[in-house]
Amino acid sequence: MNPKIIFLDAVREHNPLIHNITNLVSAHFTANGLLALGASPMMAESPDEMAELATISSAVVLNLGTPSDEKVSAMLAAGMAANQAGVPVVLDPVAVGASHLRQKTVATLTQNIQFAAIRGNAGELAYLADVQWASKGVDAGQGSGNLAEIAQKVAQKFNTIAVLSGEHDFVANHDRVMKLSNGVALFPKVTATGCLLSAIVGAFLAVAPRELAFQAACEACTVYAIAGELAAVGLQATQSGTFAVRLLDALAAIDATQTEQLMKAEWII
Amino acid sequence: MNPKIIFLDAVREHNPLIHNITNLVSAHFTANGLLALGASPMMAESPDEMAELATISSAVVLNLGTPSDEKVSAMLAAGMAANQAGVPVVLDPVAVGASHLRQKTVATLTQNIQFAAIRGNAGELAYLADVQWASKGVDAGQGSGNLAEIAQKVAQKFNTIAVLSGEHDFVANHDRVMKLSNGVALFPKVTATGCLLSAIVGAFLAVAPRELAFQAACEACTVYAIAGELAAVGLQATQSGTFAVRLLDALAAIDATQTEQLMKAEWII
Amino acid sequence: MNPKIIFLDAVREHNPLIHNITNLVSAHFTANGLLALGASPMMAESPDEMAELATISSAVVLNLGTPSDEKVSAMLAAGMAANQAGVPVVLDPVAVGASHLRQKTVATLTQNIQFAAIRGNAGELAYLADVQWASKGVDAGQGSGNLAEIAQKVAQKFNTIAVLSGEHDFVANHDRVMKLSNGVALFPKVTATGCLLSAIVGAFLAVAPRELAFQAACEACTVYAIAGELAAVGLQATQSGTFAVRLLDALAAIDATQTEQLMKAEWII
Repeated sequence: MNPKIIFLDAVREHNPLIHNITNLVSAHFTANGLLALGASPMMAESPDEMAELATISSAVVLNLGTPSDEKVSAMLAAGMAANQAGVPVVLDPVAVGASHLRQKTVATLTQNIQFAAIRGNAGELAYLADVQWASKGVDAGQGSGNLAEIAQKVAQKFNTIAVLSGEHDFVANHDRVMKLSNGVALFPKVTATGCLLSAIVGAFLAVAPRELAFQAACEACTVYAIAGELAAVGLQATQSGTFAVRLLDALAAIDATQTEQLMKAEWII
Repeated sequence: MNPKIIFLDAVREHNPLIHNITNLVSAHFTANGLLALGASPMMAESPDEMAELATISSAVVLNLGTPSDEKVSAMLAAGMAANQAGVPVVLDPVAVGASHLRQKTVATLTQNIQFAAIRGNAGELAYLADVQWASKGVDAGQGSGNLAEIAQKVAQKFNTIAVLSGEHDFVANHDRVMKLSNGVALFPKVTATGCLLSAIVGAFLAVAPRELAFQAACEACTVYAIAGELAAVGLQATQSGTFAVRLLDALAAIDATQTEQLMKAEWII
Repeated sequence: MNPKIIFLDAVREHNPLIHNITNLVSAHFTANGLLALGASPMMAESPDEMAELATISSAVVLNLGTPSDEKVSAMLAAGMAANQAGVPVVLDPVAVGASHLRQKTVATLTQNIQFAAIRGNAGELAYLADVQWASKGVDAGQGSGNLAEIAQKVAQKFNTIAVLSGEHDFVANHDRVMKLSNGVALFPKVTATGCLLSAIVGAFLAVAPRELAFQAACEACTVYAIAGELAAVGLQATQSGTFAVRLLDALAAIDATQTEQLMKAEWII
C-alpha cells in the first residue's frame, strides 16, 4: 500500500453522492457517518427510481441487511444501471449464510452485477468463498480458515476487491492481500459499523481512478479504523454508546497526515 | 413576526400527537426530537390505518425520503383524512427533483391534499417553484435564484406556508416573506435535521389557531435554529456526532424567553 | 423475586441471538441496546426467511410498531416456527388500541402464537385486558385502572408473563404480581425505550430455563431500570439525548452485584 493517503482529501473535495440500498438498522448511522466523512449520502428503496438515482450517484452500495422481494428488485436495477454507467458498486452480504433467501439473493446479485468491492466479516466472506464457518446471525462467529486466503478466494471468484473486516482487515484482489491492523474492540459493540465501512469503501472508490481502487479500499479501511482508535481514547470497553457518537466526530476530524502516521499495513500475500 | 414566542409553551402543555409518514433514515431521530421538544411522535406506514391515525393526530407530516407505492397510498389516505378532519398537514418533499418517481409523487400529493406548510431546502423548493437549480441528491446544492422569491412562489402556487430552510430560513405566505437568520453550520452535517424541522413545524401548527399559522411556522424555525446554536456552544465544526446528541438536549431545555432574546428575524417581502 | 440476579451473567456468557421483527423507529437503538447488554441482535422482515431465522435464534421479539401486511405474515411465520422449536417469543403490542389494523393484528398473533411474555405500557396492556383506558398514540396515556390487576389479567388471558412497564413495572403470571420500582423519568423522553425493554426481556428469557421465566423477566426489567438510573446520574431532566447515549454505556457496565444492591422489588399480589 502506498504510504500516502491520497483519497481522503478527494472525498472531502468532491463530496461524492453515495446511493445506499440499505436496512432499517443501519440507515441513520450510515448516513451520518458518510456526512461526517465528507460524502453525501442518499438512501432510497423503490425499484422505480433506482436506475435514475444510480446514474447520478458516484457509488452505489447494496446492503443485504433486511432483504425483501422489492429490495432485491431495487438492488438489481440499481446495480445494473450503475454497471452500465461505470459507477462503482459495493456489496455488503450481511448474514448471507443465515438463510436461503440471503444465499439466493447474493447469488442473483453476483450473477448480474459486477462489484467493484465486496465487504463483509469473516463469516460472510467464508460463505462466499465456500469455506466452512460457524457464523452467528449477523456476527462474524468462529472458524479456523485462513482469513487472507478467504479474502483472496472471494476476490478471485467474483473478480473484485474483497474486504474482510474484523480485528484485522484483509483487503484482497486477484494477486495480493494487504493486512491492516488498526482498529479497536469497541467497533463490533456498535451495530452497523460494518455497514458504515461498506459505505465508506464506496465513498473512496467513488473518487479513485479504477486502477487505484485497491489502494482506495485500503485507505477506506485504514481511515475508518484509525478514526475508531481516536474515538476510543479515554473510553472504557463498556462505553459503546459514547464511542458511536465520537466515531462520527472522529470521521470528520481525521486527516491524511494523522492516518499515515498511525497506519499499520503489510502485504501478506 | 410577533417578537413574543407563544407556541413553544403550548406544545409542551398540549403534547400534540404528530403522525409522521417518514423514512428509514430519519424516523428515530425525528421521534426523539419531537419527544425532546414536548410533542408526542407516532410513525406508521400501512395504508390500512392511515385515516384512523390521522384523525386522532394533531398534525400529519408527510416525508418523501424513501417513497414506495405503499407509502404513497398511505400518504394520500392520511393527508386526505387529515384535510377532512381539519388537522394540519405538512409536506417535506425530500430530493423531489432527483427522480421521476418523486416528481410524480409530489404532483399527486399536492393535487389531492391541501398542505398547511411545505418545508424543504433551496433545491427542493426551487423544483416546486419551477426555478432552475442544481440539487445534489438530498442536499440543497447550488443555484442563483432569489430564495425569498422561491419561497413566495411555492406559497402562492400551493396556497400554503412555504418554509425554505438553510443557512437562513425563509418563511412565506401569499403576501409576505420573513427571513430568519439563526442557526449553525453543523445542521447540514447531521442527517435528517431537515426532516426533524418539518416535524417540528407540524408540532407548532398543531397548537396554533389557523390564522396564526404563519407565526407558528416562524417560531418553529427559530426555536429549532436557536436550539442548534445552544447545542453547538464549545463544539468544533467536526463534532457532528456530539452536536446531534446535544441538539436533542437543547430542544428540551430551550425556553421562550431565551428564544426571544436570541432571535434574528426580519420581513423582507 | 429471588434477590440474586442470576441471568445477567448468563446473557453475557451465551450472547443469545435475539431475532427482532421491529419497526423503523426502534431498530437501530434496539440493536445497540442488545449489543451493549451482551446479546446478539438480528433484525429481518421478509416472510421468506422467518422460519429459518426463528429456529437459529434464542428468542424472537415481535414488535407491532409499524405494522404492514408483509410484516404480519413475517411475524406469524417467525412466531409459529419459534413455538415449534421451543424458542421463547415476546410480543410488544405497540399502540394496539390506536387502530383497527393493530387490534386485528394482535388478535391474529395471540390466536396463533403462544407468547412467553407480553411487554407493553399501561394503555397497551389495558387494551389487551379489556380495561377502559385513554391511550395517546404510542404513549401510555391516562387511566384509573389498577395496574397490577391489568397485568395479571393479561397474564391469565394469554397464559403468559405480562410485563406492564412505566414509572413502576408490574410483572405478572397467572398467580402473582411483582412490583418493581427502579427507573427514571428520562426513559419515556427517549423513543423506543419500551421496544428495547421488550428485546431485553427476550434476551433474559433466552438464557433462563422455562420454570424460571418469571424471575428472568423481573431481572430484565430491573437491570434495565437500574442501568437507566446509573445513566441519569448528574443529568438534568432535559438531557434525553445524552441519556440515550449513556444508557447504552450503562447496559454494558452494570453488573449483578450492583443490581442486587439497588433493586426495589415487592410482591403485591
